[in-house]
Amino acid sequence: MQYFSSEQINALDSGFRRNLINSLSGYKSLNLVGTKSESGITNLAPFSQIIHLGAYPAFVGILFRPHTVKRDTLENILETGFFTLNHVTPEFFKEAHWAAANWEQSEFEATGLTEEYKKDFFAPFVKGSPVQLGCKFVESQTLQVNQTVFLVGSIEHVFVHEKGLVEDGSLDLNEMETVTVSGLDDYHTGKRLARLAYPKPNKFPELI
Amino acid sequence: MQYFSSEQINALDSGFRRNLINSLSGYKSLNLVGTKSESGITNLAPFSQIIHLGAYPAFVGILFRPHTVKRDTLENILETGFFTLNHVTPEFFKEAHWAAANWEQSEFEATGLTEEYKKDFFAPFVKGSPVQLGCKFVESQTLQVNQTVFLVGSIEHVFVHEKGLVEDGSLDLNEMETVTVSGLDDYHTGKRLARLAYPKPNKFPELI
Repeated sequence: MQYFSSEQINALDSGFRRNLINSLSGYKSLNLVGTKSESGITNLAPFSQIIHLGAYPAFVGILFRPHTVKRDTLENILETGFFTLNHVTPEFFKEAHWAAANWEQSEFEATGLTEEYKKDFFAPFVKGSPVQLGCKFVESQTLQVNQTVFLVGSIEHVFVHEKGLVEDGSLDLNEMETVTVSGLDDYHTGKRLARLAYPKPNKFPELI
Repeated sequence: MQYFSSEQINALDSGFRRNLINSLSGYKSLNLVGTKSESGITNLAPFSQIIHLGAYPAFVGILFRPHTVKRDTLENILETGFFTLNHVTPEFFKEAHWAAANWEQSEFEATGLTEEYKKDFFAPFVKGSPVQLGCKFVESQTLQVNQTVFLVGSIEHVFVHEKGLVEDGSLDLNEMETVTVSGLDDYHTGKRLARLAYPKPNKFPELI
């Protein structure tokens, strides 16, 4: 095993450190976050720091980098209250990555991804995404440790492609072809090992 | 596409809803969190709500369910200040899942996973895990929206298997055989699509 102490980590070349530390948590969820400003300019950006906060009510949490520079996605959410989350597939993962570039115009225009409006929802969905969520801003706070912004949203609309919706409510992300990311730039699909039964003491988990 | 409004979500069978909402964010990181109480009893539990908070300094965030029942991992961290994060591989993902059962004794004992102590670190690592982090408690807060607890830790020790450490600092999680989870119980390895160059406007991302 290669070892790094915290002192060694802080002394690393910044690019090496950024790649390393961003890889440590494992595979991460990948969602394109769609927003629109009050003036009607759409925005799209890939995020990998999104977590499930609860099922009832349904909440998600998103972590933003410090709001010390212009951050369109965050500002649009704070201004309008609405955003979408959209899974990425192999068909457009390169465009999804490209949306993170420093574009002057809407990333939809820039990358060729298509806006989709549904259920009178203010923010644009990504056409072709197999899982699309319409979310509403609930609250946000700045983490004092490093000025990142943790935002909470409620899930108001859920669209899931039928091909991946399992009878018990779970989603088969292999069927959906949902993409996952590791580190800053390494994209993968999933390859199922197994689904396991609810864990109980004294009974080794069975496949379900 | 199958559609669910927030009203429909709240009216769903609770099991169906739990499976569905837990699947919505996509593939999630999976880490076994290792702790020990002041009295020396070790604890191990699988967590999928762990995010990267920053690289410099290196911080992670963990989301805990509401602290309304006994929660050994959280209590051990609050009491002792230390915890480990350990990636899971196909070799022991069933044991990792099993560690979530309601055991009386240490999940290490119960599941056969082996404790490993390194660098005088208080909390136990999981022997055989290709990525192991020794972390220290920094702060925690209860989210008012649903009483979940968001905890911040600093990364003090990093152990990574050399087979997956790339020259530029990133980790090749396919090489590490790191496991990812979707929903509550669906385990996968990753299947690489591509690594992409840093995104720049007007230049379609190239493979690196």
